[in-house]
Amino acid sequence: MQLAFCTWPEVEAYLGRAQGIILPIGSTEQHGPTGLIGTDALCAELVANAVGEATGALVAPVLPIGMAQHHMAFAGSLTLRPTTLLAVLVDVLRSFARHGFTRCFVINGHGGNMATIMTAFSELHAEASLAGGASPLRCRLRNWWSPQAVMALQQELFGARDGSHATASEIALTQHAWPDSIKRAALEPAQAPSGSGFTDAADFRARYADGRIGSDPSLASPERGARLQAAAVAALAEEYRAFVEEA
Amino acid sequence: MQLAFCTWPEVEAYLGRAQGIILPIGSTEQHGPTGLIGTDALCAELVANAVGEATGALVAPVLPIGMAQHHMAFAGSLTLRPTTLLAVLVDVLRSFARHGFTRCFVINGHGGNMATIMTAFSELHAEASLAGGASPLRCRLRNWWSPQAVMALQQELFGARDGSHATASEIALTQHAWPDSIKRAALEPAQAPSGSGFTDAADFRARYADGRIGSDPSLASPERGARLQAAAVAALAEEYRAFVEEA
Amino acid sequence: MQLAFCTWPEVEAYLGRAQGIILPIGSTEQHGPTGLIGTDALCAELVANAVGEATGALVAPVLPIGMAQHHMAFAGSLTLRPTTLLAVLVDVLRSFARHGFTRCFVINGHGGNMATIMTAFSELHAEASLAGGASPLRCRLRNWWSPQAVMALQQELFGARDGSHATASEIALTQHAWPDSIKRAALEPAQAPSGSGFTDAADFRARYADGRIGSDPSLASPERGARLQAAAVAALAEEYRAFVEEA
Amino acid sequence: MQLAFCTWPEVEAYLGRAQGIILPIGSTEQHGPTGLIGTDALCAELVANAVGEATGALVAPVLPIGMAQHHMAFAGSLTLRPTTLLAVLVDVLRSFARHGFTRCFVINGHGGNMATIMTAFSELHAEASLAGGASPLRCRLRNWWSPQAVMALQQELFGARDGSHATASEIALTQHAWPDSIKRAALEPAQAPSGSGFTDAADFRARYADGRIGSDPSLASPERGARLQAAAVAALAEEYRAFVEEA
Amino acid sequence: MQLAFCTWPEVEAYLGRAQGIILPIGSTEQHGPTGLIGTDALCAELVANAVGEATGALVAPVLPIGMAQHHMAFAGSLTLRPTTLLAVLVDVLRSFARHGFTRCFVINGHGGNMATIMTAFSELHAEASLAGGASPLRCRLRNWWSPQAVMALQQELFGARDGSHATASEIALTQHAWPDSIKRAALEPAQAPSGSGFTDAADFRARYADGRIGSDPSLASPERGARLQAAAVAALAEEYRAFVEEA
Amino acid sequence: MQLAFCTWPEVEAYLGRAQGIILPIGSTEQHGPTGLIGTDALCAELVANAVGEATGALVAPVLPIGMAQHHMAFAGSLTLRPTTLLAVLVDVLRSFARHGFTRCFVINGHGGNMATIMTAFSELHAEASLAGGASPLRCRLRNWWSPQAVMALQQELFGARDGSHATASEIALTQHAWPDSIKRAALEPAQAPSGSGFTDAADFRARYADGRIGSDPSLASPERGARLQAAAVAALAEEYRAFVEEA
Repeated sequence: MQLAFCTWPEVEAYLGRAQGIILPIGSTEQHGPTGLIGTDALCAELVANAVGEATGALVAPVLPIGMAQHHMAFAGSLTLRPTTLLAVLVDVLRSFARHGFTRCFVINGHGGNMATIMTAFSELHAEASLAGGASPLRCRLRNWWSPQAVMALQQELFGARDGSHATASEIALTQHAWPDSIKRAALEPAQAPSGSGFTDAADFRARYADGRIGSDPSLASPERGARLQAAAVAALAEEYRAFVEEA
Repeated sequence: MQLAFCTWPEVEAYLGRAQGIILPIGSTEQHGPTGLIGTDALCAELVANAVGEATGALVAPVLPIGMAQHHMAFAGSLTLRPTTLLAVLVDVLRSFARHGFTRCFVINGHGGNMATIMTAFSELHAEASLAGGASPLRCRLRNWWSPQAVMALQQELFGARDGSHATASEIALTQHAWPDSIKRAALEPAQAPSGSGFTDAADFRARYADGRIGSDPSLASPERGARLQAAAVAALAEEYRAFVEEA
Repeated sequence: MQLAFCTWPEVEAYLGRAQGIILPIGSTEQHGPTGLIGTDALCAELVANAVGEATGALVAPVLPIGMAQHHMAFAGSLTLRPTTLLAVLVDVLRSFARHGFTRCFVINGHGGNMATIMTAFSELHAEASLAGGASPLRCRLRNWWSPQAVMALQQELFGARDGSHATASEIALTQHAWPDSIKRAALEPAQAPSGSGFTDAADFRARYADGRIGSDPSLASPERGARLQAAAVAALAEEYRAFVEEA
Repeated sequence: MQLAFCTWPEVEAYLGRAQGIILPIGSTEQHGPTGLIGTDALCAELVANAVGEATGALVAPVLPIGMAQHHMAFAGSLTLRPTTLLAVLVDVLRSFARHGFTRCFVINGHGGNMATIMTAFSELHAEASLAGGASPLRCRLRNWWSPQAVMALQQELFGARDGSHATASEIALTQHAWPDSIKRAALEPAQAPSGSGFTDAADFRARYADGRIGSDPSLASPERGARLQAAAVAALAEEYRAFVEEA
Repeated sequence: MQLAFCTWPEVEAYLGRAQGIILPIGSTEQHGPTGLIGTDALCAELVANAVGEATGALVAPVLPIGMAQHHMAFAGSLTLRPTTLLAVLVDVLRSFARHGFTRCFVINGHGGNMATIMTAFSELHAEASLAGGASPLRCRLRNWWSPQAVMALQQELFGARDGSHATASEIALTQHAWPDSIKRAALEPAQAPSGSGFTDAADFRARYADGRIGSDPSLASPERGARLQAAAVAALAEEYRAFVEEA
Repeated sequence: MQLAFCTWPEVEAYLGRAQGIILPIGSTEQHGPTGLIGTDALCAELVANAVGEATGALVAPVLPIGMAQHHMAFAGSLTLRPTTLLAVLVDVLRSFARHGFTRCFVINGHGGNMATIMTAFSELHAEASLAGGASPLRCRLRNWWSPQAVMALQQELFGARDGSHATASEIALTQHAWPDSIKRAALEPAQAPSGSGFTDAADFRARYADGRIGSDPSLASPERGARLQAAAVAALAEEYRAFVEEA
């Protein structure tokens, strides 16, 4: 049940029987020579909507632009400063709370968003904690690929060649959902993840010349994407059901 | 050409031949008993992508959540505070400028966003104006319904019963694009626009009991939506072409 | 009744019989070779005080510095960043609300302030809308030249040569009120308004070499200023009376 | 030479011969039963303009609303939050620097502004200090009553009955300049300054029932105001001349 | 080599031979009935100074107050809002960069700081990434207990009874360093970590009545603290040496 | 009684009998060729803890990094922007208020912090003053050297050669407390305080080549430090006792 396709009386009725909502969040950033710039938002939205169908949960629109400062040396990448993304999240969470939602399950498509999302949860709660009141909303952050069943399948399908950016997995997911947008290119072996990490956009590009980190997206296929999606949706649907029930 | 479905080398190639980009922005807010909560984002995205197809322009992902504080007394509406939306826009515009885009054409689906968007343009330019430099990006704001041809067609199709919120026009657009999501309900005549405007969410709801302002969405139909969309896309495509050429 | 010249017991007495207040806002920015840098603030203050006399309304001090980033390439222009002006307005409006004022009528002297002022109203209300409370203050924005009677008189007196910046009208107003400060200079025909608008200060100056947009201030005279002022005051006084009475 | 009454070519010519500017700042706040709410802004503006005449310095418009949170329990007082006032000052100072002003002499009419003004100077310089550059503007803060000659005259005229808020001195200054706005009321002896200071508006009002701190404004007269003004202008003019010359 | 006990010529000399600096950060928050409120800051400072001695690295003063909003229902806990802590870190990192430090090794004593610290690193780099420049500073975050050798020793000494807040390990560390401040109390078995996590301060206290999460601090002893400290210092010294050498 | 070395039940017990807390704040900045970079934080902490012992007051951890933008041209100096320090103070004061503290006595070690600290107090109170409520916390700012007895002793010990930065007094205090960190260097006579003050870091260094302002730290000795500390603690302890008792 997608919020965007509901009327307000339908949401009001939903709130009479349930108080959970799913918030997908992605990023708009380079994913190597063959990965879609929208990969992280597309995957988060895709998985979130499917989890919504599986559980009957309401699903908010995907936040398409995340914290991707380190990708800005590749054309087309967009970023919010972390403090901006944090403000967006606080406002959206306050909007949920205003209507009586008590649980927000964030399905994330971009590792680079994680610290900011967790920080936003704390920012929301800090206000209540300093004022001596109680925050009406409990939040949970899950990356779509983090459930154990998904990681096991990634390992089975791609092993170490899944990589850590522009992964074979996420590209497979988009291939499955948007087969008309499959891109092909001759790929050098990707640079392995630097033990040193990276700092800003210039540093990232100096380390990872075509944008990938350790991934071989030529291993991706729509079929593998379908299996990964099914695994992610099943695992997250279960987690969502537990989350809205828990004390 | 949707940014989300491009790779970074494709965007790099695009920038070699063009420096314009289209940014759709909407809102996630109540649209009366039969209008979709996502109406403003859906319409902006729909029109923007079609203008992109007509002109070859690159189209960024829609910003789905706008400034909708006055709708917060209806379940499911989401809002950013104006200062948050302003920060988002400044970051996105700076991201465009970083890559060498020199023109940004904003296609807006929500009247309530307009003041904040114009303010964000000024905030972006103020930094250059205070520092004595030059802003690399020129921006233009257009609502999808503002071209004269669109307003004439609205008048022809619905007259005064188009209204000013949850309009027959915008609902027709979504009916055309998402016929499976057409909602029906018995509707009272909508409250006419108050000469007094409105302030906050409580005030808005007190004035407009079911969320509509002066509209009769029962006049909407997919066919009428198709005509409106065609008119909007034709007019805005022409405006976009002129915008990227102008001095 | 000017707030600056009242004592607090006088304001307390006023609040016992009326809850409206007028807030003039201007700008400190170039107005071409013969226009005063203070034109926008002077006009707003002048008109606001006269409306106050006509209606018995309390009038706050003029906010003299507005959002004028695009004028910063001309010596003496001052600007607040839009976000700063927004913060100022929110604080002033909260100050009014603190004392029990329920209506604030903003009389504006600078078109460039409009988007930021409207955004500030929304920022004020957003807090109540997100918290589920009610905003105590209703606000209205009016430019002193926007009433129909004023625009008709501008057209009658100056036609198209009134222009859109450093207008003959506003300069006439200051000539009427401060005849000792009338400035004369040989003027080229002003550059007509660019269809492209403008972005930052460098861009504005490149388009409008002496600072005027399409205006011929040599048409201004104290007598014409007197007529314009009378028209503005009459119209806005009526609007103010209606505003404080409306539901 | 008041900036508001100059044209931009006049300011440009001024900058060819001088780089100093005077910025008056006041407050809009209660000044007891007989003091004008605008006292602090009126005095700052009055003195600043006279110093400008005496020295040929350019004088910016007065900032009429200051940091007056502690006066908010008296009707008509307005306040900016300190952080808002700080942002205003930084923007105005950056505007000055943009045009090539190198010295800004702030003439202040409200003790409660002092900490925020000094903090704003540091905020301005901190950016250069962190970036490793150099701030183009040097700033000086002076209250109109702080020169030794003024304080001596206050002591001579009023002794301890000058007080520390709604002082006989400042009220005399406004009586001199605006004799039509002299207010009379029977006054209790004012509460002496609490050794404990004050915190917020409620605390201030609890300590100082009619708004005065230790002052007897019945001692004020236009003549005394004239003497005080002359003393302030003479002293500050000399200070200004030294300031713009100093290394 | 502690920065606080150096003179500036000593730091200048240091920068001639090394460009790394260690920044300890802690928290001031409840640590159960027997843990010191300063535990996190004390441990971070202790370990950081010892790593500085082992490696010759310069060590900045500990940031004693962290992000501890969830502990605010226990007397004496202090917190910064996450956005405040983020601003502090950005300023401190910019200060380091100003002097030519190129590597900052953060030794953290509080898990609740982690997301905000990582977000601050991104905020710092985002400015360079948006402007197209390069960030001069590379940062690394390590909790003092995160090296494998430390976790193995924690497991050996305390097993699961180490817990996850007010751990036996951290309390042992403070017992070793400040034996005069060892506190004793009869302790109930600690509440095991809730699968649901926690939100704000009220929620935290409702779940963890005496402030501990799953820990048995009665297992702590100065001797065990000494072993843990030695393990942490050895591991982090090695990590620091590698960090300042890495590409 | 240092907060860092208390448990939460101890703080809870303290709050049952007292509601005052002492907050030391310093700076990390150059103090000339022989002064410790940590001087201001070390002195504030030292004096605050001793006042705590003398009065039984609870003492928070020192805030080690202050507003030192003007010292940034000397290696090792750290600064917070004033707005950052202000946010820190507001959060810490709100944390105190959350637990029921009603009086906060700030013991400051750095003149450059004063304006920001006073501004922070106003920012805290402004929220209550605008909302119409009451601030729970009263704050007092005292520099450790400001009591009359301390200044008299400074005069007696050092006369004018105490100076105004890197003073003989503060260096004596650190010599007394940390005799192992006494630094020696041949010193030129210090530059006398410029009548012009200073602006940013480059300006400060241009005026004061080795970082001192008018001081002769060779006059410092541990014994003199001991006398100064005793005087400061005695005076501030008395002030603290009066502060927590006052109405």
